[in-house]
Amino acid sequence: MRAVDIIEKKKHGEILTSEEINYMVIGYTEDKIPDYQMSAFLMAIYFMGMNKEETSNLTLSFVNSGDRVDLSMIEGVKVDKHSTGGVGDKISLIVIPLVASVGIPVAKMSGRGLGHTGGTIDKLESIEGFKVELSEKEFIDNVNKYKMAIVGQSANLTPADKKIYSLRDVTSTVDSIPLIASSIMSKKIASGADAIVLDVKVGSGAFMKSLDQAKDLARKMVDIGKSLGRDTIAVITNMDQPLGYEIGNANEIKEAIRVLRGQGAEDETKIALTIASYMCVLGGAFESFDSAYKSLKDIIESGKAIEKLKELIEIQGGDKRIIDNPENLPNANHHVEVKALRSGYISFIDAEEIGISAMLLGAGRRTKEDKIDYAAGISLKKKMGEYIKVDETIAILHTNLDDYQVSYDKVLSAINITDDRPEMKDYIHEIIK
Amino acid sequence: MRAVDIIEKKKHGEILTSEEINYMVIGYTEDKIPDYQMSAFLMAIYFMGMNKEETSNLTLSFVNSGDRVDLSMIEGVKVDKHSTGGVGDKISLIVIPLVASVGIPVAKMSGRGLGHTGGTIDKLESIEGFKVELSEKEFIDNVNKYKMAIVGQSANLTPADKKIYSLRDVTSTVDSIPLIASSIMSKKIASGADAIVLDVKVGSGAFMKSLDQAKDLARKMVDIGKSLGRDTIAVITNMDQPLGYEIGNANEIKEAIRVLRGQGAEDETKIALTIASYMCVLGGAFESFDSAYKSLKDIIESGKAIEKLKELIEIQGGDKRIIDNPENLPNANHHVEVKALRSGYISFIDAEEIGISAMLLGAGRRTKEDKIDYAAGISLKKKMGEYIKVDETIAILHTNLDDYQVSYDKVLSAINITDDRPEMKDYIHEIIK
Repeated sequence: MRAVDIIEKKKHGEILTSEEINYMVIGYTEDKIPDYQMSAFLMAIYFMGMNKEETSNLTLSFVNSGDRVDLSMIEGVKVDKHSTGGVGDKISLIVIPLVASVGIPVAKMSGRGLGHTGGTIDKLESIEGFKVELSEKEFIDNVNKYKMAIVGQSANLTPADKKIYSLRDVTSTVDSIPLIASSIMSKKIASGADAIVLDVKVGSGAFMKSLDQAKDLARKMVDIGKSLGRDTIAVITNMDQPLGYEIGNANEIKEAIRVLRGQGAEDETKIALTIASYMCVLGGAFESFDSAYKSLKDIIESGKAIEKLKELIEIQGGDKRIIDNPENLPNANHHVEVKALRSGYISFIDAEEIGISAMLLGAGRRTKEDKIDYAAGISLKKKMGEYIKVDETIAILHTNLDDYQVSYDKVLSAINITDDRPEMKDYIHEIIK
Repeated sequence: MRAVDIIEKKKHGEILTSEEINYMVIGYTEDKIPDYQMSAFLMAIYFMGMNKEETSNLTLSFVNSGDRVDLSMIEGVKVDKHSTGGVGDKISLIVIPLVASVGIPVAKMSGRGLGHTGGTIDKLESIEGFKVELSEKEFIDNVNKYKMAIVGQSANLTPADKKIYSLRDVTSTVDSIPLIASSIMSKKIASGADAIVLDVKVGSGAFMKSLDQAKDLARKMVDIGKSLGRDTIAVITNMDQPLGYEIGNANEIKEAIRVLRGQGAEDETKIALTIASYMCVLGGAFESFDSAYKSLKDIIESGKAIEKLKELIEIQGGDKRIIDNPENLPNANHHVEVKALRSGYISFIDAEEIGISAMLLGAGRRTKEDKIDYAAGISLKKKMGEYIKVDETIAILHTNLDDYQVSYDKVLSAINITDDRPEMKDYIHEIIK
C-alpha cells in the first residue's frame, strides 16, 4: 500500500477500504506518513466526502490509535453527551446531576480546550476545592456509588485525531463533515460510552451555520454510533444567540444552579431537559421521551436536582455552600453596565462576538498557556425578542482587567435593536435518531 | 497574509490575487511555508482550478523564483518548442536544424529527465564527442553565428516549480491542468524564449488521454504565453502509438537523420514540419504557415536540412561522420526479432508499454542515478494500420542485456493484431492559437 495511491483514490471519489483508511491514520500517527500526504488526503476528503462505512472506519481507526477507557466495572448503561459547542453552553453542568438523579450512571470525561470560556471542568474549578483529578478507582467508585463523576481527560485517547486535528487547523480542512463527525464520535467511544446524546448546535453562534449542515453532521454521527454499536441520538438546537443569560465560568455555575432550581432561562431549561431526557431513555430508565421529560421536570421542582449537584460538588471536594450562596463564587473587581443606545426589540445577539468579548475579559483561553479568570464573564440582561428602553442596561461585563473598553464596544455592537419584534426560532429544531 | 487563509480562499473557489499566489510560491521556495500547507493548497487547486489570470500569475511566480536566461545578445526572435512528452518523440532533433536553416535562432536548453529514453541532450550524446556543456558565451556566439545551439540546463531555473513538482508527485496532485500549464510555461519563459510552439500530445501513450483535456491544457498554455507577452501556438498531435519507428537514443538519432533526408516516417515528418513551420512563422521568417511548410519541405529535399544537422554536430564537437554512416552510432550486442503470433492488421500499439520496454532494455532512466545505454532501444517494423503475416518480424529489440524476456513479452502484448483494418486518427488534431 502507498499513501499516494490512497490519496489518488479518494481524489477520484472512490470508496476507501477499512485497510486503506487504517493505513493512512495509523501510518500518520506513527510518523510513517508525512504531514504533506495527510494534508492532501484531508483536502481530498473535504471535496469528495466519505460514505457511512468509510466514516465509521475512520472513527474506529482514531479509537484504535490510543487508549480506551474501560468502564465495564460501572453497572448500567453508561450514557455520555457531547455538544458541538456554543457560547454560554452550560448544559453539561445541568444534565450530569439531573440524569444521575434517576439512577443512570454518568461517567463524564471532559477536556479543557480553548475558547470563549473554559470547558466544563474549568467551570467546576471555579468552585473552591473542586477536584477534577480522580484516580481511575475513585472515578469508577464514585459513579457506582453516586451515579456521577467528572474528571479531566488524562488517558491518551484518540492521538490520531489529535494529531490530524492540529494539521486540519493549519490546512483549512476543519470544516469537513465526515472529519468532524469521526473526530467527535471517536472521543466518545474511546471514553467508554455505551450510548451517546449529541447536542448539535446550529446558527450564527455555532460552527454549523445552516440547518442542512447541522442535519448532515447529526446524521453522520448517529450513523457512526449505530454502526459501532452505540445507541446515538442527536438533538439539533438553536445557537442564534448565546444560551441563557450568563457567559463565563463562575457565572455559568450560577446559572446552572438557577436551572436546577427551576428558575432558569427558558431556552436553557428546555434544551437541558431534552438532552437529559434522551440520555435517560437511552440509559433505560424510561420507556418514552415524554415520561422522562415529565419526571425530570418533577425532579427539578422537588429540589432533588439541585441537591444532586450539591452532592457532586461535595464528593469531588468542592465547597458545596456555593449552592445556597452563589455570591461566594469568585467575584470580579469591575461590573460594568452596558447601556442600550436606543429603544426597541433585541433582534439579534451575535454569540460569536459575545464569546470573544468574554474571552477578552479573561473568561477563556486563547492559547493553552493562558490562565482563566473564573470571575470574568458577561451577564446578558435581555435576550432576543425582549424589549429594551434607551439607557437601560443590556448586559454587564465582569472583569478584573481595568481596560475593558474593547469588550464594551464589542458587546454593544453585537446586540442589535430594531423597531419590530424579530421572528423567533425554536430552541430545538430536530431530533435525529 | 496567512497561508491557511489563502488555502481556504481557493478551497471555496475564489480567485486569488497575484500577491497571494506569490506569497504561497515564494514562501514555499524559501521554506517559510511548510510542505503540508502547500500540498493542501495544491489539492484545492486540483479541485477548484485557476482562471487565466491566476495561472499567468502562478507562472510568473515560478519564473521569478529563480534565474532567467538572458538571450538579449542573440539577434532575432528566439523561438522555443516544447513537447508534453511521448514515446519515440525525436521532433526536437529534427526541428532544431530545420528552423535554423531558414535563419531563425534556436537557442535550445534541454533537461535530461527520467523516462523511457533520455532527453534530447542524452540522444545527442550518443554521438561520440557531442558536447552539451557550453559556456554562456559559446552558446550565444554559436546561436548568433550558426542560428542554433543546444545545452543542458545548468542555471537555477524555476526552483519553485521544481520543489512543488516533487511535492505534487507524492501527493497525487500532478494531473491538474493549471499546475501543468504553469510548470511548462515558466520553464520556457525563464529560458528566455520570445515565442513558443507547444506540441501537446494526446492519446493512450500521452499524459493527456482525451482530446478535451489536451485542448484545455493547450488553451491554458497559449493564454499564459500571450498574457506574458510570448506569442504561443499549440499543436495537438496524436500519441496513440509511438512516434515514427525508432525508440531509444542512438536509434532516434538515426531516425531523425532519415526524416531530415526526406525518408522519414509519415507521422513524424508531418508533425516535425508542422512544428517547425509554426516556429518559422512566429520567428517572422514567413508570412503564412503554408509558405513556411512548403519551404521547409524544399529545404529537406534540397539536402540543406541534413547538412544543417551535420553542422550542429560539428560545432558541438561531435563526430559528424555518423550522418553518412549512422551504423557507426553505438550498437547493441543483441538484436532480437519479435515475431507476430498471427496475421492481421496492427490495430493498436501501446506506446506506454513500448516505452517501458525500451527503458528495461537500458534506453532510459528510472532514477536520476541510472546510466543510459545509448545503443539500447526498440525498432518497430510495422505501425498501426499496416498488415503483418504470422511469424513476420514486428519489432526488433536492441540491448546489451542478456535478459530481455520481460521486454520481449511486453512488446509482443503491446501490439494488437486484428482482422479488420483499424480506423486511423489524424496525426495532427488541432491548432490552438
